[in-house]
Formats: sequence, C-alpha cells, structure tokens
Amino acid sequence: MNNQQLMDLVNQMTLEEKVAQLLQLTANFYEGTDAQGQITGPMEEMGITEQSVHASGSILGLSGAQAIMDVQQAYLKTSRLGIPLLFMADVVHGFKTIFPIPLAIGCSWDLELAEKSAEISARESAVSGLHVTFAPMVDLVRDPRWGRVMETTGEDPYLNSLFAAAFVRGYQGDNLTEEVDRLAACVKHFAAYGAAEGGRDYNTVDMSERQLREYYLPAYKAALDAGVEMVMTSFNTVDGIPASGNEKLMRGILRDEWGFDGVLISDWASIREMIAHGAAEDDREAAYRAIRAGVDMEMMTPCYVNHLPDLIQKGEVEERLVDEAVLRILQLKDKLGLFDNPFRAADPVRERDIVFSKEHREVSRELAAKSAVLLKNEEQVLPLQPNAKVALIGPFAQSEDILGWWSCEGVKADAVKLGTALQERLPQGTVRTAQGSDVHTITEKQIATALEVAYQSDVIVLALGEDSEMSGEGGSRTDIRLPEAQLQLVQALKATGKPIASVIFNGRPLDLHGVVQESHAVLEAWFPGSEGGAAIADVLTGAVNPSGRLTMSFPQSVGQVPVYYNHFNTGRPINPDNTENRYVSKYLDSVNEPLFPFGYGLSYTVFDYGDVEVSAVEMTANSPLTVRIRVTNTGDRHGVETVQLYVRDVSGEVVRPMRELKDYVKLSLAPGESETATFTLTETQLRYHHADLGYRSDRGEFIIMVGPNSRDTQSRTFKLV
Amino acid sequence: MNNQQLMDLVNQMTLEEKVAQLLQLTANFYEGTDAQGQITGPMEEMGITEQSVHASGSILGLSGAQAIMDVQQAYLKTSRLGIPLLFMADVVHGFKTIFPIPLAIGCSWDLELAEKSAEISARESAVSGLHVTFAPMVDLVRDPRWGRVMETTGEDPYLNSLFAAAFVRGYQGDNLTEEVDRLAACVKHFAAYGAAEGGRDYNTVDMSERQLREYYLPAYKAALDAGVEMVMTSFNTVDGIPASGNEKLMRGILRDEWGFDGVLISDWASIREMIAHGAAEDDREAAYRAIRAGVDMEMMTPCYVNHLPDLIQKGEVEERLVDEAVLRILQLKDKLGLFDNPFRAADPVRERDIVFSKEHREVSRELAAKSAVLLKNEEQVLPLQPNAKVALIGPFAQSEDILGWWSCEGVKADAVKLGTALQERLPQGTVRTAQGSDVHTITEKQIATALEVAYQSDVIVLALGEDSEMSGEGGSRTDIRLPEAQLQLVQALKATGKPIASVIFNGRPLDLHGVVQESHAVLEAWFPGSEGGAAIADVLTGAVNPSGRLTMSFPQSVGQVPVYYNHFNTGRPINPDNTENRYVSKYLDSVNEPLFPFGYGLSYTVFDYGDVEVSAVEMTANSPLTVRIRVTNTGDRHGVETVQLYVRDVSGEVVRPMRELKDYVKLSLAPGESETATFTLTETQLRYHHADLGYRSDRGEFIIMVGPNSRDTQSRTFKLV
Repeated sequence: MNNQQLMDLVNQMTLEEKVAQLLQLTANFYEGTDAQGQITGPMEEMGITEQSVHASGSILGLSGAQAIMDVQQAYLKTSRLGIPLLFMADVVHGFKTIFPIPLAIGCSWDLELAEKSAEISARESAVSGLHVTFAPMVDLVRDPRWGRVMETTGEDPYLNSLFAAAFVRGYQGDNLTEEVDRLAACVKHFAAYGAAEGGRDYNTVDMSERQLREYYLPAYKAALDAGVEMVMTSFNTVDGIPASGNEKLMRGILRDEWGFDGVLISDWASIREMIAHGAAEDDREAAYRAIRAGVDMEMMTPCYVNHLPDLIQKGEVEERLVDEAVLRILQLKDKLGLFDNPFRAADPVRERDIVFSKEHREVSRELAAKSAVLLKNEEQVLPLQPNAKVALIGPFAQSEDILGWWSCEGVKADAVKLGTALQERLPQGTVRTAQGSDVHTITEKQIATALEVAYQSDVIVLALGEDSEMSGEGGSRTDIRLPEAQLQLVQALKATGKPIASVIFNGRPLDLHGVVQESHAVLEAWFPGSEGGAAIADVLTGAVNPSGRLTMSFPQSVGQVPVYYNHFNTGRPINPDNTENRYVSKYLDSVNEPLFPFGYGLSYTVFDYGDVEVSAVEMTANSPLTVRIRVTNTGDRHGVETVQLYVRDVSGEVVRPMRELKDYVKLSLAPGESETATFTLTETQLRYHHADLGYRSDRGEFIIMVGPNSRDTQSRTFKLV
Repeated sequence: MNNQQLMDLVNQMTLEEKVAQLLQLTANFYEGTDAQGQITGPMEEMGITEQSVHASGSILGLSGAQAIMDVQQAYLKTSRLGIPLLFMADVVHGFKTIFPIPLAIGCSWDLELAEKSAEISARESAVSGLHVTFAPMVDLVRDPRWGRVMETTGEDPYLNSLFAAAFVRGYQGDNLTEEVDRLAACVKHFAAYGAAEGGRDYNTVDMSERQLREYYLPAYKAALDAGVEMVMTSFNTVDGIPASGNEKLMRGILRDEWGFDGVLISDWASIREMIAHGAAEDDREAAYRAIRAGVDMEMMTPCYVNHLPDLIQKGEVEERLVDEAVLRILQLKDKLGLFDNPFRAADPVRERDIVFSKEHREVSRELAAKSAVLLKNEEQVLPLQPNAKVALIGPFAQSEDILGWWSCEGVKADAVKLGTALQERLPQGTVRTAQGSDVHTITEKQIATALEVAYQSDVIVLALGEDSEMSGEGGSRTDIRLPEAQLQLVQALKATGKPIASVIFNGRPLDLHGVVQESHAVLEAWFPGSEGGAAIADVLTGAVNPSGRLTMSFPQSVGQVPVYYNHFNTGRPINPDNTENRYVSKYLDSVNEPLFPFGYGLSYTVFDYGDVEVSAVEMTANSPLTVRIRVTNTGDRHGVETVQLYVRDVSGEVVRPMRELKDYVKLSLAPGESETATFTLTETQLRYHHADLGYRSDRGEFIIMVGPNSRDTQSRTFKLV
C-alpha cells in the first residue's frame, strides 16, 4: 500500500482500535485461540478487555510456523479492517541454531560472519513465522558485573557500531518486502542501558550528555543508519527520566535529530514501570509521558490501551500522536508485506528443513571458533599434540550449558559438548574425562578422580566456567571470579605438575586470578553456541588457529571496575618513572592496567610487525593520511592477524581518550608470508563532541598507534592543520 | 583600605608584578631567606625567575610564627609596593591538636563541635602565622575505594552542607579583620572531585549536570553562603574539561550564577596538569584556559607568571582578567588586615601556650568520642565491665598511627594510644596487651602470644585497622577489607570463645566481613586524632555512651560499590515479595542493602520511638508541616539519640531518591526520660532540579520517614498541593 492508503486505513479506525494497535502482548493472551477466532487469556489479570486483545497490533514471543499461522488466521477473522498481527521475538544470538553470545561474536572482529549469523537467525525465524526480532542489542558496557554484558559486542563505540550495522544488514537484508526470509530488526536498548550503576541490572544510569553522545549513542545511530526498522526503549533512567518517558531522548534525539520514523517500542512493562521509578503517579500518567515521548508500541502493560482514549478525549494528548504511532506500525506491517500475505515466510514444511540445518550449524561452528580468544599459551601447550594423552576435566567438560542465557528457542540437548567433540577428534583412547567439580561445588571424590585422570595424562584440558544463569538479564554479580569450587579444582590439578590448558565457558570478562597464573594456556571460549564443543575442539586441536580478540578489558579484580581501554589520561597519569610517587592516579594495591587489554588475543603462530609508515606528518580536511604496516607470519602455521589502528587527540577543547579504535584489518597469512595492512585516516574520524556538543575536529597534534592490541602498539604523530 | 585604594594599588603594579601576585609557591622557594632579603630556591627547576619569586603573592605550607614572620619581613623589604605575602596551608582536621578525620567528624552529626574544632584549628594556625587554610574539603563521596573519603563528611548533600557551613564559621568567625585568631577558609575541591571513577584518585569524573547540581554542588554552595573567602579547583575533569580550565563551571556557575567574588586558587599544579589531561598543548594554553575560566591564583606551577604577560601583550587575554584576579587577592589581604599588620596573629610567645593546649585537646577528645560509631553490641559486651580482665590485642592496641593522613603539623608521638588510656582507666592489672599482628603481617608467635593473653581474659578488645597511609590523598584501594593478616587474627581469637569487642581505626567505609560476624561488638573509631586513645577508652569503659552515626554506607563488598542511601528506586525494585524473581534490580550473589546503612549507630542504652505525628495531610507553600515523634530512653543509662527525618517525593518530573535527609534532632535523655523531636518541613525543602534544571517542587504525594537511621523508619504520607 502507499502511504495515503495507510493513512486512510488509520482514519477508518476507531480510537479504541488505534490504541489497541499500539498494544503488544505475549502469546498466552491468545491461548485457546481456535478456528472460530475465540480468544481467551489472562486479560483480566492485566485489566485489559477482550476487545483490546482482539484488536492488539502484535504478539511477542510466539514461534513456530503452524502456531503463528493459526493465531494470525483466527485474528484476521475478527479483525474489522483486516489488519494483520505482527509477530516479534527475542532472537538475539540465533533462533534454533544458536550462535556464540554477542560478546563472543564481538571478539571475532568478523563483520561478515556476524552478518551471516543474523541472516541465518532471520531465515530460521521467518520460516517459523516471525516478522521482527528484538535485536541487535548494542548497549556499550564497561562493567563486567552487569549480567547482560554477554548480549553486547563490547566496550568500544566504533566496533559496536560496525557490529550493529552488520547485524541489521543480516536480519533485514536489502529489501524487507521482497526477501521474506528476513526479519525487521529492532535495535535496543535506547539508551545507555549498559551503564547501570554498580553493574546491577535495571539500576540508575547517570552520565553527562557528552559521554552519552560520544560513547553510548553511536552504536544505536549506526543501526539506524543501516536502516533498522524498530527501536526499543531501555529500562533505565537517562538523566533522571526513565527512557520510556524521556521526551528529550526520544522526540529530541531519536526522532527530531536523527529522523527516525520507524516504530519505537517500550521494553517489557517499562511504560508502567515509570510508576516504580517515581516518574509517573499511575498508569494514566505513564501513558501520557510515553506517548508524548514518542513511544509507539507498549509491551506487556495496558497503560496506552486503558488510558489513551481518555487522555485524548480530555484534550491532554493530541490524537495526532496516536495516529502517527499507528501509522508507523501499519507502515511496518506493509513493508513486511503482511497486508498481501499475513503469513509471510511461515511454512511448517520448509521450517523442518531450514531450522537448525547442517549448513546453519556449520556457520555457528565457524563463528564460535573465530570468537574464542587465546589469552595465554606458554610452552606451546596448545594446540594439543596429536598423540598426547589428554585429561579433560572440569564442569564444562561434558556440559550442554554452553548456549548462553536467553537463547530462547535453543535446545541445550542439541549442543555439541566439548568432551564429545574432543573424543571424536583425537585418537581413540587418548582422552579421559573427569568432572572434577560442579560449577559451584566440589567433593573430595571429584578431586580424587580428577587427580587420577590427570596423573595418567600428558596434558590437562580444564573446562571451567560460569553456568548460563550467572550472566544474562538479571544475572548481575558482585563477584566476578570463577566459583570457589573451580578455583580449588585448579589448585588441586596444579599440584600434579602437568601442563594445564584452561578453557573458560562464560558470559562476562572475569577476574581470572587463580586460573591464569596456574595454567600454561587459557582459552576464553565464551558461551559458544550449538556447535560450541566442536568449535572449541577445532581450536584445541589446531584445526583452527585462534584469532579472537577481546572487545572488553578483563579487569584485575572487581575492585578495579570500570576498566576500559579508551579512558582519559588524567592530570596525573602513572608512568614507568613515577610508580613510586603516591600522588599519581593509581591504586595502592593494584596496577591500573587490566589483566588483559582490549584488542588482545594470541595465535598459534607468530606475527612480526615492521615499522609503521605514515604518508605525511600533516593532515588536512582534504588530504587523508595513509598508514601502512607490514606484518609477517614468522611461525609455522597459517594464521589470521587483526591489525588495529588507534588514534589519540593529544590536546582538545574537551579531553580525548588515550586511544580510540579507528580501523582494523584482518590479514590471513601463510607461514613466512608478509602483507601490508593499509589504513586511510581522514579528518572526519578525528571529530568529537565539543564543549557546545558540536561535532568537529580540533587542529593540533595527534598520535597514531598501530599494533595487535590496544596495549602493544607503535606510535607516530601527525598534525591536523 | 577601601576598594578604590586597592584598585589604585593594582594600577600601580607592573604587569609582571601583577602576574607574580597570582603565583603561589612552597616555602622552599624562599629557603635561605635572610635579613638582607636574599631569596634563593628551586626557581630554575620550575623555570621561574628570582624576580617572580620575589613578587609572588603567597606561600604555601610554611608554618611557625617565627619562620613566617622572618619570610614576611624579608619579603616586604624587597616589595616595591609593600604588598604582604599570604601564608596558606592545609589545616584540614587540626593544626597541632589533631581532631578526628572529617569523615569521623561527620559521624558526630555535631555541628557545634565541628565548628569548635575549626575554630581551634584556626587559633593554633593563626598564632603560628598562617592566614588561610585549605579547608573545608566538602566533596561528596559514594565510593569507599577513594582514599580521600577520609577528608569528607560523607555521602549526603544536606549533611555535608551543614558541616561545610559549620567549618567555615569555625575557621573564619564573624569578622576576619578583627578576629586575628581566625583564618580565611578555602572550600575545596570545586567540583565533584569525590566522584573519581573507580575510586581512583585524580581519575575522570563524569555525571549529568543534574546530578552535579543536585548532589555534588550543594556543599560548596553552602560554604559560599557561609561566607567562605576562597575556593580551590579540583584535579578532575568536569564534563570532559579539567576543573582548573573549566569556564562553564568557574565563570558560569561559581562566579556568575553564585556571585562568588573571592579568590579562586588552583589545586597543586593543576593548571599545568591540563597538559597531561589533554586539554592544553603547553603551559601557555593552560594559562590561557585557567585565567579565562576565572582562576585567580596558580599553585606551584608557573604557567601564569611565565605566559600571561605575553598572552596579554598579544591580545589573547584581556588584562582586565588579571586585574580582577589581583584585586581579589589584594582584597583578601586587606580583609585579613595584612596591610596594617603583615604578621597578623603570628606570635612565637603566645604560640607556645595556645598550640596543642590542654583545652584544645579536650575538645578533640570529646569530638573523637562523639564520632565513634557503635556498629554492633551483642550481649552488652560493651561497655567493659568494671572489673573484667581485658585482653587488648591488635596492631592498633598500642599504635600512635591514629591521626589519619595529612594531619600535617600533627605529631604521632603526641597521640594518646588506646593501650595507654585503657591501662589508666581500668583497675591495675586487669588489662593485658598483645600485638597479635602487624597491620599487614602476622606471625605464629604473635598469634600464640595473643591467644595466651586472650585465654586469660574475660573479654577481648581487638584493635584493628588500616594504617594512615592506606587512605588519604593517593590512598585509593581496590580491596576495602582489612588486611588478610588481621582477618586471620580475628579467626584465631574467635576460636577462644571469648567475647570480642573489635575497634576499627581507619579512614574509609570497609567491607567488614570477617570481623562483624566474629565479634560481639564492633566500634568504628576512625582515625580519632591526638586524643584518640583516651576518647575510645572513654567509650569502651562507658564514660561516654556512643552516639555517632554513619554518614556513609558500609558496603557488603567492593563489588557492590557504589552503595548509598539516597539512591533511586529503579523500575524494578526488589521487595520482600519478589526476591526470587530474577528480573528485579539485584545481584545474584549479594543483597542490595549495605552492611550498615547511612545514619546507623547504636547506643549503650535503648530508645523507644512513639508514633510519628504529622500536623496535616496536606502541605502548601505557605503552610509547612510539623512532624513530631516521642522518644523514650528505656535503658539504664544516659544517652544521645539522633532522630532523623527523611522525605521521598513519590513521583516527580525527574526521578527522586528513595529518601533524602531533610533534618535531624539530637535528644539527650536520662534513663526513663522522654522527649519529643519536632521538625518543621516546608515546601522549599522539597525542591529539586527539574528537567530544565529549574529548582522547584512538584505537587503530589510525598512520604515522610522518621527514625534512628535511614533504614529503620516509620512512614507517613502527605500531599503538596
């Protein structure tokens, strides 16, 4: 339909139909739906009429082609104007084929594969009847205590922005109307949900507008620039006002400044939660604030449906605001082709072939292997020697709990376990397994068995981690070490003197004291998804040479949080000459540096860096610089190196970070092979938000830093003139 | 002199004389000063000419009447215009008579004694030749990792404001010109220095302007309202710009909005440190930014003296700005009467009588006893029974290190040790002492001796703590537990089964796990100052009934930081009904509540609270409410109860805290005595910074909470109409 037709449709709707269109409920409200269009459910509990449920515009969390087709069919039978339902769900890191958690995907630095993973997620979801995914989650995070750190790609605004765009492209494709195997994407959580105070989920967020714009907003904006169809509000306050009622944020920045004209949806119950926040006295005021702020769709609370009619009739809210919201929803339905085919790609037959297909799982396996980060590898303990006797020990040796939190349609029993994969990979009889400990507990007997297995081996592969409940939404922790039981297991095994290769399955940067020192090798496997065991076995055996790089700093301890690479220098920076000086910015009992820095990750081979060459010592707005560095694989196996370009603005009107990632290049090098990484650096990449929040660059001195991570870089200076 | 005369004096000054007047150096620049006016020192090192030193306007850190008089005399001999030097120093919690650290003073909730302590500090300083103290420090703090938490009165903007004003009154008196035993005060550190990220000293500060104005600025403003003569900049950035070059903060808020026309001084080297921050390319730009921001006086770096002349000559800085700065400095000198008597109260003879007098020390002792906070007292272990055999054990049993960091003129050897005082207080032979452990280490032999002493006692007094270097400037820590050695000592002594009364000497809220559970009683003594041992003995023996109340929350662990009482509710608050719900704002491994809340502290007696009575259910701008509660001392000894009034604005345009301290009353009650605490609550106390930063109240529902601390309160609601 064209826009006029859609507006005509809006004009045919009653006010009640309009506000119902803004309502989103879970499928259980429609339970018992039958071919006669009878709709039943917990309407009463929420104080919603059956009429409103009948007329509601979208459903959350239902999947399966047949189920969705049934509901759609029943719904349309009673829909006066034939407006189809939208079906949305959290497809965050895979539908049935579960990919590594987003934090792991971030560590792949592989935008193509990230996009591919989203495309596959969309294909599986679409054939199962879905239209919209509540993804990507692009919240920047600096605090590993926060459980949802697993859902983000990390701490860097630039890298998060690249991934945000890649995911949106992967979900949405080039033409949402024609490519029915794609989903509309919904970027979340706008805004700054990742900055919850104390890392406690849903907690207060407070920061300067400059910080918000400079670090937290870019990834959302990148998703918009990539054409994302929807935006979701966040649970937190932004500058003292809950996001779902924050007019400055939503009307001001999102709509007016950025021109977003898609659908803005509240997060689960977050409109009503304005009451708990203390920003609305009741449902009515919550509805008032949310609609004025520009929120189109209300998820799982009835403030709009119950109160907007009265607010409009009393003249407190202009009906125009509701019309706009409805129009945006209808536009999305139209773009998804639902007026022509309300079932879109839903197909119970194709569903069986497409969902969790071998081809899809292969991509998940590849991405999981590329997401793993080798943090330590002394004496080349990894990869495992072909005929080594391996003791595979630890609570994750045979664990299926490797999908990560909120992998909704994912089935743990389908996950490939590390033990299974390693047994298949290595010569028969060379792998012996012991539980060693559970995630949280350890017994004398477990230790004894583990030691027995360990003593008979050449090398210990120690599979440790956090279970999936320990991160994810509502999974915040004040202690970011592995559970004590597992640290005890490490100690016990260390006493054997056997080399230990620790593999960590988890969802956040951890304080790895008690593991790193005690292990010869440490591989951060994250929650690697459906093919996790196979992928990690690929890395451990050397079939895949690890190339993942951390996208969040690993702190020395929780007492050092937040620690992130793009921090300020302070007026009293610590340096090798003043470490004994009390009056520099440091802790008495800890170094300032993280345990492992942003961008860090090892390979089984060795890369030598030549000298950085910069094409000129001066840059102008019209003459970018070219930065070149030659990298040689001096090891004995093929490997992929991620060459990273950082820049520092030495002196600005506003203080600039010590380094900011501006670009990176992946080089795939055979043994002995060299290649030159080439970067083009332009004036636009040097811009930042000034005292007046204006976005522009400062003339003066800059430092270019190039290297394999944010710490080990070569520097060159140039001037912007 | 009148202002015209002062302006005339400015007009007589050369530009070089003017900029030198803005320079402040330490006394060592004047070392070797002799009767001939020869001035020598490390000028070259800093790139300052002898002429500039000659003409500099003030000296930092020198004290002693004779020394100061000598320098002043020598200085004036060479001063072309006879402008006397100002002598300033850090007199933060006492000159020679050291009072408890400010965080402890805060816990007294005793404004009168706080004022008295400042008055005594001024008297001792003034007779020793000083004119200005760099105090009070009123930075609000929520992070106990920060070392300078000891210098603040706590986490509450209202209480900090009251103390700020009390200290200023105490230092300055009513008439600075006539009362020569007073000092000009300098409130610091403007602004928000206490919000250093990660609690790491000098680290980046970032917050919304709303947060800055609502919580961090009020105490500085209160000092200004109390007439403080000077303000010091802070080391940190504020909204991305170092405070010392922050035009919006200094010209905008401090000067224009608040009308401050006193002297604004940079903190130590903080003008030059703008280069390290990355906000100035060189000294010249640093000078440019600082003078434009409104900083009058430059401490310990030569940016002004070396570059302002050129900046003015080249027209980049208006000479008017320098003239204004000089005039403000001359006005201060004039107000201090220095043009009439450049030695002011300096008097080597009186100095001997006044400094560290018995009378002064008595006040310190009283304040220290009132600052101690009784955190736990089971089975009435405290006060000590008159004839009990006491084992006094621990690294602070006989420690002189109880003054706290930065008690510059304080002499540890003068401090009254706990062991000494307790021996004097209790019957001969009843107190036996053992070291038990050092602050950071413990030996088998120490444990053995401690156990031997413990087994022979009825009760153990366990004196634990952090040494003074572990807090204070540059004293940030990632671990806020007591050192492991002391926790081992606690465990060893717990095994004796003897009741333990732990006394903690330290400078920050600690994670007291490993002490509280193991002790029957816990007394937070802080760093109690010169008479610390005597004061704590007063409390332990019951001569003083403890009445201190925490002004900072004690966290459960460093992983819970920041935890503070006036937090927001969030949209998903935890409550008794939903603790099992994963999706509320909580940690998986910790409660949200602190170990000990703001306002908390026990007494040796018991206070019963009647019902809160509120005079009306509605308030208007012209009809305040009266809040009454009757409190009865139902115990068997006299005691002081601090009745606290908190208010919550249930729903605001901007989210308001769960509770905010609005008032408190101290009741001094004999056994069986009752008294009614009466509060008047007015509309002005309900105002806050709205979305537009306007300061006003919202109509609607409020909750009044009254009780002995921020947690254990009774509630009543009212409406502002």
